[in-house]
Amino acid sequence: MGLKLGLKSKFSNPLCLGALSLSLSLHSSVTVLTFTVCVCAIMAMSDLSTPKTTSPFLPSSSQLRLSSKLHLSNQFRHLHLLPPPLHTTSISKISCSVSQNNQAPVAVQENGSVKTKKECYGVFCLTYDLKAEEETKSWKKMINIAVSGAAGMISNHLLFKLASGSVFGPDQPIALKLLGSERSIQALEGVAMELEDSLFPLLREVDIGTDPYEVFQDVDWALLIGAKPRGPGMERAALLDINGQIFAEQGKALNAVASPNVKVLVVGNPCNTNALICLKNAPNIPAKNFHALTRLDENRAKCQLALKAGVFYDKVSNMTIWGNHSTTQVPDFLNARINGRPVKEVITDHKWLEEGFTESVQKRGGLLIQKWGRSSAASTAVSIVDAIKSLVTPTPEGDWFSTGVYTNGNPYGIAEDLVFSMPCRSKGDGDYELVKDVEIDDYLRNRIAKSEAELLAEKKCVAHLTGDGIAFCDLGPVDTMLPGEIIIHGCKVDGPYAKLETHKRQ
Amino acid sequence: MGLKLGLKSKFSNPLCLGALSLSLSLHSSVTVLTFTVCVCAIMAMSDLSTPKTTSPFLPSSSQLRLSSKLHLSNQFRHLHLLPPPLHTTSISKISCSVSQNNQAPVAVQENGSVKTKKECYGVFCLTYDLKAEEETKSWKKMINIAVSGAAGMISNHLLFKLASGSVFGPDQPIALKLLGSERSIQALEGVAMELEDSLFPLLREVDIGTDPYEVFQDVDWALLIGAKPRGPGMERAALLDINGQIFAEQGKALNAVASPNVKVLVVGNPCNTNALICLKNAPNIPAKNFHALTRLDENRAKCQLALKAGVFYDKVSNMTIWGNHSTTQVPDFLNARINGRPVKEVITDHKWLEEGFTESVQKRGGLLIQKWGRSSAASTAVSIVDAIKSLVTPTPEGDWFSTGVYTNGNPYGIAEDLVFSMPCRSKGDGDYELVKDVEIDDYLRNRIAKSEAELLAEKKCVAHLTGDGIAFCDLGPVDTMLPGEIIIHGCKVDGPYAKLETHKRQ
Repeated sequence: MGLKLGLKSKFSNPLCLGALSLSLSLHSSVTVLTFTVCVCAIMAMSDLSTPKTTSPFLPSSSQLRLSSKLHLSNQFRHLHLLPPPLHTTSISKISCSVSQNNQAPVAVQENGSVKTKKECYGVFCLTYDLKAEEETKSWKKMINIAVSGAAGMISNHLLFKLASGSVFGPDQPIALKLLGSERSIQALEGVAMELEDSLFPLLREVDIGTDPYEVFQDVDWALLIGAKPRGPGMERAALLDINGQIFAEQGKALNAVASPNVKVLVVGNPCNTNALICLKNAPNIPAKNFHALTRLDENRAKCQLALKAGVFYDKVSNMTIWGNHSTTQVPDFLNARINGRPVKEVITDHKWLEEGFTESVQKRGGLLIQKWGRSSAASTAVSIVDAIKSLVTPTPEGDWFSTGVYTNGNPYGIAEDLVFSMPCRSKGDGDYELVKDVEIDDYLRNRIAKSEAELLAEKKCVAHLTGDGIAFCDLGPVDTMLPGEIIIHGCKVDGPYAKLETHKRQ
Repeated sequence: MGLKLGLKSKFSNPLCLGALSLSLSLHSSVTVLTFTVCVCAIMAMSDLSTPKTTSPFLPSSSQLRLSSKLHLSNQFRHLHLLPPPLHTTSISKISCSVSQNNQAPVAVQENGSVKTKKECYGVFCLTYDLKAEEETKSWKKMINIAVSGAAGMISNHLLFKLASGSVFGPDQPIALKLLGSERSIQALEGVAMELEDSLFPLLREVDIGTDPYEVFQDVDWALLIGAKPRGPGMERAALLDINGQIFAEQGKALNAVASPNVKVLVVGNPCNTNALICLKNAPNIPAKNFHALTRLDENRAKCQLALKAGVFYDKVSNMTIWGNHSTTQVPDFLNARINGRPVKEVITDHKWLEEGFTESVQKRGGLLIQKWGRSSAASTAVSIVDAIKSLVTPTPEGDWFSTGVYTNGNPYGIAEDLVFSMPCRSKGDGDYELVKDVEIDDYLRNRIAKSEAELLAEKKCVAHLTGDGIAFCDLGPVDTMLPGEIIIHGCKVDGPYAKLETHKRQ
């Protein structure tokens, strides 16, 4: 099985909660499970992994290397973007830092016991003291950024943006912590090697691993992109459960080992409910710190309004996506502005606004797959960058951005205890506040209520993962997954297409 | 056949110049040619395409759109990143600018005659007058950048970097001109759509097309990434010829329609000889303006030296790659410096420097494919960015960079009329000068001579494409294509893998 699911259910008995047929073809294409009824409860109690200790494994500030000998037991490699010293003679001739032959000395804390291997690299450690060097002493303190689904296409775009300094700025050194599945560990090494070959001055450390309790150690940002894509015939409830377990585990891991003020951005679908599950499993982290990505929808909505209005896309502002990142999402043309004027004044085709506009945003991803033959990884990565930048730079006066956030205390009467996309502003400190004076008319209210109802139903369906009791799935007959986005997020986690491409090319 | 080859040979008779077996499986996987002997001469006279007129087709400054009706005859679409006006009612609901239904008015100069269609978009044209807007009036004049192989993976990384402003700066508006094959035209539309959805303020225009005479119109930069990958069993001479014909055609097109001072960077392999063919077919463009990409090799060489020396990669400077982008390349450890000191003083393992180091650079691409399951598109794109930035920003005092350039007038005694990677410096004006005071010892001289001999042999093999007479191929028994790079460049030109992925995912 491609991804290990490390969450143990709180429930001790399989309870049959509803009839549900699941034909689940896992990514490895060797494991096929087919069963009917009791899906949520049964899967919740399945222990699909070796339980992991939540105790810290590697302090992120330590200057350690794991030798390849430890790989199988730890499923974790600490790939500092730094070379071994001159006196090491067993360097591979063809690898910069991930050499199989590279028996670098390490000190590993494993299962609570410390194993010290050979020696520590003096030069290696020294390099991290950025304050000691003239060119880097004015730099900010290094931040740790975890990315899950790190071997996937979205990450392949995103990681190079993060490493280049274009997201967090030219004086912000970063450490990348790459989380993947066991199947993707080689691909993760490839990603790390390409990052090395890119010589980004700000990128000072790269870790790769398969255990979120290790990879999330002390992270300041967690960009959760990896998720199981829905296979052919898979019910949405099953997808919710499978991914929910991943995000429950990752929430627990973040809770246990991440920075207490870690910012979490969930991209893997269904991202709103995944974010809710994640935050409910991380009670020590402020719920406000969790986001579900609706920025690609916002960007697409701006583009569609610009198209219709005959203006360049930079003229569209105040674009809100309300609700779930699904077809029930509500791109808000009532409050959006074009050249500072209400959209309805500029675009007089109100029938299009009420009917065609939303559909044009929803179907964009599907159309892209049709045209392009692959999902929109590049623009998704751009929207992740936009989402982060919106939190670390002050929002322009009078404008706002959309992000899926926790609803408690919201001024719009949206049910509490959900993750719901709403208009937000930031002072640039990583935090945000809800915009409170947005007008909601009957049309909007009605649409928002539908998205709210959907998220409430999704929440009930994953109650076993949020600590809210017994799950009950009634998601209705209509499939509201966004066309084209079913396979977008994290579809490269297990890398079968990569294998396929390799095979074809050889 | 995937890519149309538009070059007519100057030779009227097939001449048998050498025995060569060619088993050529073209990208479409429907056309398989197998024949023996006379390859170069026979292929040189094959007219595989409809000849194109060299007269300008569309002035790049015109604010035009082609309707979809013109698609088949023109194989070209002008996708301004701007919407149609409000009064157009036939907008597709799901596409921002590439709608099939979008019957936008156009004025098209085709075969010398002007066809004016319907009307011009006032709002559309207005947007390009960047001097009229407060936010953009301080911006530089827009530059046109052509990218071939634009539907491939390298381009998919590169285009978003170009569009984001991270290459040419935050005050440089750009127009992207995407060249692909007929098979990739849908994928190119997908790329254009993703660029739109990314809302890059500096990206003001996107054109897509399959005819270099149209796409290269008035371009200031031509980044030639697309090339035919070598299929199983294909001889290197055949690859040289097939790609040579593409680059001969593109050279002629640049000569006819590009900006007279266009800078050309050839990435598609074999890139040195492709660049030579290109420049020989573009006599009106200064030969000095043509480059073959060896920057990825330079970056990898710096990384390998850093690894060995136990320093961060930013401590390595003055790295030269001499010669051909092949296994005969010479990464120069004699003149490179680590922390300002000669490498040989810092790394005392001279046996490794003379034997292991070069191999580690050469084999990096192959190792990456092995690990990652795909070629190193992301780091290649980064190196293209580095190569461009090295020409548009002043080179740091005392340092240099490597690029494959025309050898005429070189101070190192390297044969003239080749494209050879050498150390260069730039004032940041897009031009460069050769560094003249680099020491060459016997070891270097011997290695450089081998790479020079290889390029001379390649040149003889493509003489029919450079106007140097009759081709004669004797490339020797050793295959010097870089492992892993055989399939790197432009492998997505015809998009079969994209189709494959789509198929698998559906």
